[in-house]
Amino acid sequence: MKLPDIFASPANVRDVLQGKPIFNAGDESGEMFVVQSGAVDILINGVLVETVLPEGFFGEISLIEDSLRSADAIARTDCKLLPVNRHHFLSMVDELPQFALYVMKGMADRLRKADKRAMG
Amino acid sequence: MKLPDIFASPANVRDVLQGKPIFNAGDESGEMFVVQSGAVDILINGVLVETVLPEGFFGEISLIEDSLRSADAIARTDCKLLPVNRHHFLSMVDELPQFALYVMKGMADRLRKADKRAMG
Repeated sequence: MKLPDIFASPANVRDVLQGKPIFNAGDESGEMFVVQSGAVDILINGVLVETVLPEGFFGEISLIEDSLRSADAIARTDCKLLPVNRHHFLSMVDELPQFALYVMKGMADRLRKADKRAMG
Repeated sequence: MKLPDIFASPANVRDVLQGKPIFNAGDESGEMFVVQSGAVDILINGVLVETVLPEGFFGEISLIEDSLRSADAIARTDCKLLPVNRHHFLSMVDELPQFALYVMKGMADRLRKADKRAMG
């Protein structure tokens, strides 16, 4: 899916070096991240549950629930991330239905994978 | 959360008797359901993963992904359900940002629970 142009502002990009944490479980949250380049590993209790690739996103659960991070996110490679804070998130849901659908599709995919994992 | 008035049309309500299936894994999908009264059990491979109560919803994953049902849904009690088909869903995401947020909150809650289940 094409990301909205709103993401394209270079001023907004965050560079993270390979091996560096983006956040850890228990951290306060306030942003989700869209992966522009590189890859990010998501771990729960040290177990790799997902590797997020370009155009994918992560960190939305605690943003939506306004709760603490439930997983660790670590740069698997050098990567460029587009942070979306709560204000930005709400205004995009308000103004860009395709952004809401993009987030819902990613979450549906993640739910299906989580259910498969749970069932072994 | 208050459900949009659009849900309130009595013409739209579907009554399901206790013990009856609403859908089964592998079925074609085309609707999600908001629980107006009663309770609905969601099972994956015969394992109860969630009981959906009034104001909660289910069936959104395959609606969003346009894919087959991944779980069974069975009326735990007599219940009243409000079906939301794909056309209705897309127009509500378009017109009612609070509907998109309602769906995303429910999915975030479900993801957190699925992750906990997966981790034992």
